[in-house]
Amino acid sequence: MTFHSENLQLDSPLGEKHETSPDRVFTGRLGNGMDVIVIRDHRRPIATHMVWYRNGSADDPIGKSGIAHFLEHLMFKGTRNHPAGHFSGLLASVGGNENASTSWSYTNYYQRVPKDYLKTCMVYEADRMTGLILTDEIVDIERQVVLVERGMHCDADPQVIFEEALLAGAFSPDPCGRPIIGWQHEIETLGREDALAYYYRFYTPENAILVVAGDVDPDAVMDMAETIYGAITPTGASFKRPVVQAPPVRTQRLLTLVDENVHEPALTRIHVVPSMTATGPHAAALEVLAFLLGGGNASYLHEALIVNNRMAISVRASDWSNVFRDLVHFQIDACPAPGVSLTDLDDAIENALEMLRRTGFSADDIQRAKSRIVANAIYQKDDHSALAWQYGVAASLGLSVEDVALWQDRIKGVTTEDIRNALTLLERSTGIVGYLTPPATDA
Amino acid sequence: MTFHSENLQLDSPLGEKHETSPDRVFTGRLGNGMDVIVIRDHRRPIATHMVWYRNGSADDPIGKSGIAHFLEHLMFKGTRNHPAGHFSGLLASVGGNENASTSWSYTNYYQRVPKDYLKTCMVYEADRMTGLILTDEIVDIERQVVLVERGMHCDADPQVIFEEALLAGAFSPDPCGRPIIGWQHEIETLGREDALAYYYRFYTPENAILVVAGDVDPDAVMDMAETIYGAITPTGASFKRPVVQAPPVRTQRLLTLVDENVHEPALTRIHVVPSMTATGPHAAALEVLAFLLGGGNASYLHEALIVNNRMAISVRASDWSNVFRDLVHFQIDACPAPGVSLTDLDDAIENALEMLRRTGFSADDIQRAKSRIVANAIYQKDDHSALAWQYGVAASLGLSVEDVALWQDRIKGVTTEDIRNALTLLERSTGIVGYLTPPATDA
Repeated sequence: MTFHSENLQLDSPLGEKHETSPDRVFTGRLGNGMDVIVIRDHRRPIATHMVWYRNGSADDPIGKSGIAHFLEHLMFKGTRNHPAGHFSGLLASVGGNENASTSWSYTNYYQRVPKDYLKTCMVYEADRMTGLILTDEIVDIERQVVLVERGMHCDADPQVIFEEALLAGAFSPDPCGRPIIGWQHEIETLGREDALAYYYRFYTPENAILVVAGDVDPDAVMDMAETIYGAITPTGASFKRPVVQAPPVRTQRLLTLVDENVHEPALTRIHVVPSMTATGPHAAALEVLAFLLGGGNASYLHEALIVNNRMAISVRASDWSNVFRDLVHFQIDACPAPGVSLTDLDDAIENALEMLRRTGFSADDIQRAKSRIVANAIYQKDDHSALAWQYGVAASLGLSVEDVALWQDRIKGVTTEDIRNALTLLERSTGIVGYLTPPATDA
Repeated sequence: MTFHSENLQLDSPLGEKHETSPDRVFTGRLGNGMDVIVIRDHRRPIATHMVWYRNGSADDPIGKSGIAHFLEHLMFKGTRNHPAGHFSGLLASVGGNENASTSWSYTNYYQRVPKDYLKTCMVYEADRMTGLILTDEIVDIERQVVLVERGMHCDADPQVIFEEALLAGAFSPDPCGRPIIGWQHEIETLGREDALAYYYRFYTPENAILVVAGDVDPDAVMDMAETIYGAITPTGASFKRPVVQAPPVRTQRLLTLVDENVHEPALTRIHVVPSMTATGPHAAALEVLAFLLGGGNASYLHEALIVNNRMAISVRASDWSNVFRDLVHFQIDACPAPGVSLTDLDDAIENALEMLRRTGFSADDIQRAKSRIVANAIYQKDDHSALAWQYGVAASLGLSVEDVALWQDRIKGVTTEDIRNALTLLERSTGIVGYLTPPATDA
């Protein structure tokens, strides 16, 4: 069979599925609208079972930041058929494991089990898609758990506070700028009604994607999914996340966080750029550019700031093109060498980028970066769970299986001109720079 | 009659009205829920007629910034009974005038006419509360008018760009941070459907306040209003603006706008503070503090920065406590003396405030500031249109006539301790500072 859909919104009838080389990936859709992706890997007798919902913290209603993540916690609180802890105990007894995660654009639940337990996972996950039982008491206790999580991992850590402030500044007014865990004062207001309203709105088969990877037969998986997940009645509710386009930025923005728990000063510079869901070459070019600028000891910024200028002791560049739809962030992080101020380091980074805007990268460097990225991608595909994750993310973002399979070609196709254009997205005046620093000491 | 209501949500039946001294203000409510405020002033045979709607740009739907202001423009495009220009022509012929304005929390329409034309104004305004006719052609043309207005008065002026960026930063994520005129890319998307949806939602008698001031008889005004405005059917739609509380700010924020059309560098520092709708002494104390800090040549910052340090050539402080509900901004503006950097001026302002946090103001200075503010307020009350405006703003913000009348008492009651507490709202780490500057010239 050949893959022929533009995206996962296949109009194929039940049971008709499509395989795309080279990842041995089959796709289909259940009668109730739930999408299915199956990745075959017979090397070990295990299976990874994932359900992805196409909603994440970016969909938290205004004033209710953290609700997607909060509901993810609550999803482990049990149903009539599976009281809390029941399924986790079973998984532990057979050597499986499970977890869940919430990101900006998706929420997912997954298990890795001996292959004979795939059906058990499906039954459990289908059950909690509609059967969740929440009491005020459960919700109140779990809210405290999340608040403690926020207190320990966010509010006590100046690095997290710093990143939250930078992202909020960079993405304002888009709700993507809110932290996934939520703002504390909003988490405090989340109640049972909020959780249930969110659950009924988003936890539907039409909004879900089943991803199964491992030692499985795609036909059998599809049949099993239709029997188990296909029995869930669709709600008919369509969902499209509104995108709030930021106004053009003409002011240079600087955030400074001075905190006594910071021991080494650090600089972070963020630019909002097109994501991999955007058309055109920008996203692929930015991935290559991140590697060229800060992807290791041979990178341009490493050479310029650490080896040549001795302004920095570390520098890296990262693109986040695969974390959410439409717009994402491109990030440069650096720590100054002893005696170098953050202002001087900031200028040095801008000077290095300005030089590149004039001279560009050599064709050889670009070729090397592309080869390395593609090699890394191939290596990652060796683990079926990692591959399942990759397809799950892509499907959540609205990308097709083909988009994932062809991403390497998009990387290979990046030109010198594309890199030059990508550099124009990193104009200092449109970015936001943060200084994280210990309090000044009197000399 | 004595005033006895807590706010304008009077439960008095039609025709029963209440007078509050000292402003000769009468209030009532029509059968359909429309509030009425009448201010008697027999000195000249004229009348000011205003209709205020309790919605402004802060209520623009996400992604539709500018719709309140856009509809204000469209409200002059005519009804079946009053084609565009008809009423304006009549007003001009009798020596009257009219205008309208949109702010964050309200939109208003007003006329100043010979007193015999009050009824004509009511008939016209009541007619366009329900009878507005919009075609795509009218909307398209007016959208261009607004875009030109934005281009000329905002985008071509770095000072406006600068203020827009500061307010957006200060109020994020609250929609109050959007410019009243809207962001250009969102204005461009506003269509007839948007305008009508907004009109039907907000232009209702329950959401409106009639303010009449001048040489009128309150009983006659109330009867006339009941006949003319009272005939409009209420929609029963209640409206409460959601307030998005910002997360705590722990990072110091700096925006820099470098623009070749800037000739003199300038600094603006903004703090988000409680408005006059908040309970407690903060808002009154902030009004006194603004006067103490930057209200003229005897003010503290004038003395510190211009006279003593010679760091600045101008400095002023303003509180915006009466522009919208809940949270507003407190603003310090300064221009550096020749040769002084914005960074040094920034530090000098903070040092001056830090000194005040330790020493406070003298009781004499505080007393003088309060007396001056109260004297100014009494002077302003002499003009019935200004008074009408004051009551219209207050009613739009949800304040009572009593709140307005008692504001002077709140100012008089401000203590040394209140001022000290107000100063804690101006911590540098929670504010946002902007530098507006010409491009650097090579020395």
